[in-house]
Amino acid sequence: MFTFETSVRVRYAETDQMGYVYYGNYSMYYEVARTDALRSLGLTYKELEAQGVMLPVLQLNCKYIRPGKYDDLLRIRVVMQEMPTKRIKFDYEVFREDDTLINIGSTTLVFVDMKTAKPTEAPDHVKELFMPFFEKAESPE
Amino acid sequence: MFTFETSVRVRYAETDQMGYVYYGNYSMYYEVARTDALRSLGLTYKELEAQGVMLPVLQLNCKYIRPGKYDDLLRIRVVMQEMPTKRIKFDYEVFREDDTLINIGSTTLVFVDMKTAKPTEAPDHVKELFMPFFEKAESPE
Amino acid sequence: MFTFETSVRVRYAETDQMGYVYYGNYSMYYEVARTDALRSLGLTYKELEAQGVMLPVLQLNCKYIRPGKYDDLLRIRVVMQEMPTKRIKFDYEVFREDDTLINIGSTTLVFVDMKTAKPTEAPDHVKELFMPFFEKAESPE
Amino acid sequence: MFTFETSVRVRYAETDQMGYVYYGNYSMYYEVARTDALRSLGLTYKELEAQGVMLPVLQLNCKYIRPGKYDDLLRIRVVMQEMPTKRIKFDYEVFREDDTLINIGSTTLVFVDMKTAKPTEAPDHVKELFMPFFEKAESPE
Repeated sequence: MFTFETSVRVRYAETDQMGYVYYGNYSMYYEVARTDALRSLGLTYKELEAQGVMLPVLQLNCKYIRPGKYDDLLRIRVVMQEMPTKRIKFDYEVFREDDTLINIGSTTLVFVDMKTAKPTEAPDHVKELFMPFFEKAESPE
Repeated sequence: MFTFETSVRVRYAETDQMGYVYYGNYSMYYEVARTDALRSLGLTYKELEAQGVMLPVLQLNCKYIRPGKYDDLLRIRVVMQEMPTKRIKFDYEVFREDDTLINIGSTTLVFVDMKTAKPTEAPDHVKELFMPFFEKAESPE
Repeated sequence: MFTFETSVRVRYAETDQMGYVYYGNYSMYYEVARTDALRSLGLTYKELEAQGVMLPVLQLNCKYIRPGKYDDLLRIRVVMQEMPTKRIKFDYEVFREDDTLINIGSTTLVFVDMKTAKPTEAPDHVKELFMPFFEKAESPE
Repeated sequence: MFTFETSVRVRYAETDQMGYVYYGNYSMYYEVARTDALRSLGLTYKELEAQGVMLPVLQLNCKYIRPGKYDDLLRIRVVMQEMPTKRIKFDYEVFREDDTLINIGSTTLVFVDMKTAKPTEAPDHVKELFMPFFEKAESPE
């Protein structure tokens, strides 16, 4: 399992007249969280695209528990439960500064070869980054 | 069952450098679709808030089948499978002009009394609007 | 002089917690207005890019007179005072349905050859579209 | 004169299919910059609203020199040239990490009493925060 945490400050632009973070903006926070997670391992999504691999989103799920508010410094926890294959799945938990869980979600993305526009296996150097987090405990003698 | 269709033209602002509609922007298209659907029945969400009832989103699901592109005139089909109670659920299908299905999703919203900030039953005048679409066939003698 | 009018309905996503249209979103309404204006002449910006010419924005000015509000059906008047050269300038006026002027602005864009990434003269077929609106009155005998 | 610097990382959501930061999104970066500037002085805009004073934008100017790109860590320099009165003006310069100036702009905002919805003088505690930066050199004997 791989986990990572980052934070985003809610912008005025991201609120709506309900005084809440607009529900569609969590997708953007998830984006920040997963790219910061990759960056923490030494990989930027920008480089990945430069290498000819892009990662469009296949699926998004989002559950709204409490509202996010303007100027909140939200803490986002990203979890990868499985090694990437052709797909890579991230789970997210969003917390207020007082540790109230306000939102949970997940995104599934697919590795796409930009030349062929076809799904492709995660590049080896990407898999290698995650391997240490998924190595099975060796069975005792 | 209640169904309704509307359309949105993809703005440049809504694309990303992949040349696709940014995945988070479908939530905005869903918003347009469900408010246009309500409007078609003579109800605006704006009035609902003026009456002291708001409809925050509880859950969002979104499946990306094909990319939406700049300037596409997307057709969005909204379906309500059940009468609103404390909650109201909308299903969405997004089509390109050539009828290719590119995205499906759903949102569940909750009626909230703005005075108490508590969930509340859908107002009667809202239920009445939907009733004709959900009346059961009378059983034959 | 070339003028054109279009309208946009304010989305919930575009409001902020002040209950106003977020100030940055007028740039998006301007985009809709100028691309609808081009479309009215038979030109889509999408085609222009497909022909290898893009139109990045050089300058934006925006004056906020009254707030735009959720669900307002804003009417946007676009004016071109001069024939496009390497640059093209649009002026905008944004009105509420009751004809209150709420916002004025302008954008200057530059024609860029996508191969060379250099500014270029407006393509002839673009100029021809605008010519009827800028023909000088013939001098009397 | 008061100056402050902050930085924002360009999100994928903020790019468009040109591969640039969408021109309307600089307004959001300006928002981050001026609120971070206020925060550096011990004032949050959130508190200001809680005290019954809001700061809608009256005017926005924006000049695009070079494109911002995905994942750029943009440095934004905010400058206030004058003490706030009923209005407060911020100038902005946006730099890439290599110090290339890519964008300049300004916003003028107005202090509004939320009870009366009328313009009002900047609150004293706000003025006091800025005073040290605008004190005139004493004239020599």
